[in-house]
Amino acid sequence: MPTGFQAAGIKAGLKTSGKLDLALVLAPEGAVCAGTFTRSLMRAACVDICTERLQSSSGHCRAVLINSGQANACTGEYGLIDTLKATQVLADLLGLNVEEVLMCSTGVIGVPIEMDRLLQGLEVLVKELNTQGGSLAAEAILTTDLVQKECALEADLGGRRVRLGGMAKGSGMIHPDMATMLGYLSCDVGVPAEVWLPMIQRSVDSSFNAITVDGDTSTNDLFLGFAAGEPLGSDYWDALETGVKSVTQNLAKAIARDGEGATCLLEVEVEGVECEEEARLIARTICGSALVKTAVHGCDPNWGRIVAAAGRAGVSFNPEDLELWIGPFQLIKGGKPLAFSQLAVSRFIKDRIDSPYLDGDTVPIRLIVGSGHGSAIAWGCDLSDEYVRINADYTT
Amino acid sequence: MPTGFQAAGIKAGLKTSGKLDLALVLAPEGAVCAGTFTRSLMRAACVDICTERLQSSSGHCRAVLINSGQANACTGEYGLIDTLKATQVLADLLGLNVEEVLMCSTGVIGVPIEMDRLLQGLEVLVKELNTQGGSLAAEAILTTDLVQKECALEADLGGRRVRLGGMAKGSGMIHPDMATMLGYLSCDVGVPAEVWLPMIQRSVDSSFNAITVDGDTSTNDLFLGFAAGEPLGSDYWDALETGVKSVTQNLAKAIARDGEGATCLLEVEVEGVECEEEARLIARTICGSALVKTAVHGCDPNWGRIVAAAGRAGVSFNPEDLELWIGPFQLIKGGKPLAFSQLAVSRFIKDRIDSPYLDGDTVPIRLIVGSGHGSAIAWGCDLSDEYVRINADYTT
Repeated sequence: MPTGFQAAGIKAGLKTSGKLDLALVLAPEGAVCAGTFTRSLMRAACVDICTERLQSSSGHCRAVLINSGQANACTGEYGLIDTLKATQVLADLLGLNVEEVLMCSTGVIGVPIEMDRLLQGLEVLVKELNTQGGSLAAEAILTTDLVQKECALEADLGGRRVRLGGMAKGSGMIHPDMATMLGYLSCDVGVPAEVWLPMIQRSVDSSFNAITVDGDTSTNDLFLGFAAGEPLGSDYWDALETGVKSVTQNLAKAIARDGEGATCLLEVEVEGVECEEEARLIARTICGSALVKTAVHGCDPNWGRIVAAAGRAGVSFNPEDLELWIGPFQLIKGGKPLAFSQLAVSRFIKDRIDSPYLDGDTVPIRLIVGSGHGSAIAWGCDLSDEYVRINADYTT
Repeated sequence: MPTGFQAAGIKAGLKTSGKLDLALVLAPEGAVCAGTFTRSLMRAACVDICTERLQSSSGHCRAVLINSGQANACTGEYGLIDTLKATQVLADLLGLNVEEVLMCSTGVIGVPIEMDRLLQGLEVLVKELNTQGGSLAAEAILTTDLVQKECALEADLGGRRVRLGGMAKGSGMIHPDMATMLGYLSCDVGVPAEVWLPMIQRSVDSSFNAITVDGDTSTNDLFLGFAAGEPLGSDYWDALETGVKSVTQNLAKAIARDGEGATCLLEVEVEGVECEEEARLIARTICGSALVKTAVHGCDPNWGRIVAAAGRAGVSFNPEDLELWIGPFQLIKGGKPLAFSQLAVSRFIKDRIDSPYLDGDTVPIRLIVGSGHGSAIAWGCDLSDEYVRINADYTT
């Protein structure tokens, strides 16, 4: 983990599976924290409390408690009462002001947290805090995820070693604007809050807000980025932002790849639009199309569905300018379909679905829609019958 | 069929399955036609031609040719050339001006029509025209649909018998604003164009624009409504509109129920919002949520997913005002979950999924979000693993 940060993950008995379910990340003194939050109207109380405390402390929060198993959203007064109680007890144990302590919950909506178990676990959790605890924390925040999502990056900036660490959870319900996902990043250099906050926002826009699994968004989701350490000179802020984006994109792609029932990662690059936002809108619409996702799952180079999705994204372009590639195969040029080998493209997709390597399972789709300078990438996954099976009996 | 209208449906050899694939509807002299069209940027040329001819003739079109098998969208110049050619040949056979003839295509995107076969079929098609041909036409416009979608309604208005007839196709890719669906209505009374056009628009808004199957929209889709006959007095226009809405809603529900792989109809009613449009937006968001759709398929009364979908619809409401019912079971009151029997609600849903009767397979969800006077209904269907299987190998 980045210097000065500590983390822990324990079994508090919140998950019926008996797996790790309670995590804590503690940033060193002087930390600045930036957060981005779900835009859903149905926000869990813990999201409101994070928002309020980050505002009232101008981002000077140091600890975040994360429970999995119960989302504690739509639970009436429990949402607020339980979050206030848990963060107060934790603040006392850590010797912090309660305003410096944040809380996140993930799990089934409408179910309050098993508070007795959570409160009993807090003392152990604080004792377990250590500089190597990141991996256990990353495990404790998972719900239906198949794999842990962690990322670490080191670089020499301004004559010193800078470390970035990140973890995330999310599987299903992943959609731009902070859907059901939790993400955390820590960084061991000091950056002024007025620089760090927009840097995190831009990084989230090009990563977590560029993925989609099933178009649903949720009640509890957020991203928190902590920076704490010796100040880093302003000459190196751009380089730092490159690193932060790299970590957030790595985590976001891991979430998309781990979409419920997914067998490959969809990477859609759109170029030639007026601005980045419009490019991302088209790319996300393609990534989110159920017909594109099922076609990819069936190794079907169905370019008609890709251009149909682009056409309904709400961004204006001239259909006669369209150029489309799947991997190295160009399927459309100047708006017209080219002759291509269905079998070869189908095999190209199948190789990616069958790939045992995480790096080898990306199906790249590239669309040029004009001569503008805006471009963006979005990520998603294929839609399999396994997705339906997972989601048709999650609570029952 | 309504008095004066004729139709036909034949096998022209456009579908490899050998099923009916070419349809024609002919309205009597003096007909007024109103159309609503896909808003996708990637519109097939036939949609553009329909739009242009309806405008240039002020709605005085009389014939519509419909082929299934090839969508003739994204086919470069073929789209335009083939549509111009087919409508010209048909106009000559019918003795009409080509501006009075419309054309619609449905099938695989990117594939041009087998024009030789279509042109050879036109003469037979015109010979087959008759007042009982509606059902064959309704069969010829289908693609992956499992059932024909027809609806007829009769009423006594102003001392005379008024007849309404409708047919539609659509399965998968059904989403508000004219997704992959074709719909036609005929009515044997005369109504001024300036009354008929907005009446059709309102009817489409509350029917075809209130259904969603998978959130995708397509290149070819439209609705056409013909009115032709003795003028109907303005006192009866409201009653006529009620009838038109009833036919379009009946067809729209049949499309939603026939969504690819669907086993039940979702009917989501939202009340207590400021205006009808906002209510419809919430209702459609719930109907379109992959997580709600899979939960219903799993007979899972997962109200958390329903309120999460409502919360991200982009319409403001106070979560504490929420009331939610699935069928007769109230699950949320004053924003808080009520105790309810999971088993009883699950069984209620299962009975609908298992119902052999079309009327008996509706899962009704009712959501009150405040005290406003706006309300609306949207329809959708559950999401099954069958959907994935159907769409993962449509072209290959």
